[in-house]
Amino acid sequence: MDITDMAQRICAGERRALARGITLVESGREDHRAQATELLAAVGKSKEALRIGLSGTPGVGKSTFIESFGMMLTGQGLRVAVLAVDPSSSRSGGSILGDKTRMDLLSRDPNAFIRPSPSQTHLGGVARRTREAVALCEAAGFDVVLIETVGVGQSETVVAQMADLFLLLLAPAGGDELQGVKRGIMEMADVIVVNKADGDLKATAIRTQADYAGALRLMRKRPQDPDGYPKAMTVSALEEQGLPEVWETMQTLINWRRENGFWDQTRAAQARYWFEDAVKTALLAQLESPNARAALAALSDAVAAGAQEPGAAAAAFVRELHEQA
Amino acid sequence: MDITDMAQRICAGERRALARGITLVESGREDHRAQATELLAAVGKSKEALRIGLSGTPGVGKSTFIESFGMMLTGQGLRVAVLAVDPSSSRSGGSILGDKTRMDLLSRDPNAFIRPSPSQTHLGGVARRTREAVALCEAAGFDVVLIETVGVGQSETVVAQMADLFLLLLAPAGGDELQGVKRGIMEMADVIVVNKADGDLKATAIRTQADYAGALRLMRKRPQDPDGYPKAMTVSALEEQGLPEVWETMQTLINWRRENGFWDQTRAAQARYWFEDAVKTALLAQLESPNARAALAALSDAVAAGAQEPGAAAAAFVRELHEQA
Repeated sequence: MDITDMAQRICAGERRALARGITLVESGREDHRAQATELLAAVGKSKEALRIGLSGTPGVGKSTFIESFGMMLTGQGLRVAVLAVDPSSSRSGGSILGDKTRMDLLSRDPNAFIRPSPSQTHLGGVARRTREAVALCEAAGFDVVLIETVGVGQSETVVAQMADLFLLLLAPAGGDELQGVKRGIMEMADVIVVNKADGDLKATAIRTQADYAGALRLMRKRPQDPDGYPKAMTVSALEEQGLPEVWETMQTLINWRRENGFWDQTRAAQARYWFEDAVKTALLAQLESPNARAALAALSDAVAAGAQEPGAAAAAFVRELHEQA
Repeated sequence: MDITDMAQRICAGERRALARGITLVESGREDHRAQATELLAAVGKSKEALRIGLSGTPGVGKSTFIESFGMMLTGQGLRVAVLAVDPSSSRSGGSILGDKTRMDLLSRDPNAFIRPSPSQTHLGGVARRTREAVALCEAAGFDVVLIETVGVGQSETVVAQMADLFLLLLAPAGGDELQGVKRGIMEMADVIVVNKADGDLKATAIRTQADYAGALRLMRKRPQDPDGYPKAMTVSALEEQGLPEVWETMQTLINWRRENGFWDQTRAAQARYWFEDAVKTALLAQLESPNARAALAALSDAVAAGAQEPGAAAAAFVRELHEQA
């Protein structure tokens, strides 16, 4: 594989090269990992896209929202990439974006790029690979990268480590259900969007929005927010109502953050986070080689049989690992 | 420090040597870590104590229970050690067993050994050190090692990785509060003990016990349990009522597990767990050396400034670390 060529094609915005590049960063094979690292270094630091984390439990109309919101953005001449972090996809047997027909128009739009989520079991690995896929989309010149996740808690935290802003999509619901959103996820949200503000549900949606607006006002003000943020809004993705207002709200927030240094600060902190994460992953990857696995298994048996003390066996193993290196 | 001498004194049951040994395994200093590993190997595999994990939220009368239960055991000629895993002690500014006066009689009993919990911030570190302190108490010939923890969820999981059985202490409460005990902790319990079955609370305690007994019956049977287990019981630690029954219940369970191979099986699995934990800890400890810290800080700055890609910087760092080793 010619990595330099691939990097050039990605930077030129070639969608097929981007797709192949993402397949490369998603691979678990050791030689692929090395090539992926090479590719990411080769595309270099490019234009920064707006990275939007998007979370919402199943049934809130996430696909419809992404379709309508994405079509609005491409209609303005913006290029939009959609990626997904889905730690559960391997269990549920399919990726949340696997069924592209859910976003029929957007998936056929030449200015959009939709990538199904990789089916991996380990959230940490999925997170790192998604972060790298985001970097490739930026290199390919996309203006907006939407990172979708299911509302299960842990995945939001890792998406927050790669997004510039976090959008929480909710369905209209009675006041009691406000408790259903975990406090940690509420605290992460920059914009809460209550979808399905149409037909019979419109009144409920407006009431739900008011409930969340009230809850947000009770929360401690964060340094990275201008006055009035985080915000709660209503949309109808189905009837394409309220979407320009959501986009304007996001842009106001992001412009303020750029002007006040929070954009750069967040990006720098995120880069440090992924660096430390990659260092730890690389150190622990030493345990995956066939030699290391065999040595670990033998020592683990000795420890289980009581022939060796766990700490002493571990120290001996690590010493040997360093001598072999 | 003469580690061989210390090991011999611990195995001879010298309490001062045991206390000094535990201080050694609790130390974070690198030279102490090496000596601790040496000490644990030197004391060897000794008589196996019965390791009892004990959890309960503040206010359930844990100290009173440990005092009464411990005094009953020492009264039968058994030697009893009490240790604590308390991940929150550094925050609350004191260890849960720091105030020894809470166990006035037991702390003055020559057949008892009470050790305040180490004040560490990192639960993982506390867990490993407590596991090593347990091993030293076994080497010193204690018959029972009680490992106390606060009921916060995460610490129970690590205590379960070093205990032969898990006792959950609860206070009398209305049926609604049954929900307050996290399902994961319920599933971990071998014996649920409702304390304060005395005075005005006696009727409530009995009702609470019945509620939990009902809840336990609804849970899936675990292979490591004989019929009728896990059990729910009532005691009054204050009036020293019901304690012999709890001890008998525990012994019946443990004898059954010994006879059916579950004791050995659990101990072996736990040893493997601590071995793997120690290997990972040792690998990541490479990041703590002054050289490594300096290199990490410099690379992290470069990554934050966008001069290097996180993954490439991490790969370069790990390569250099191996070359130096």
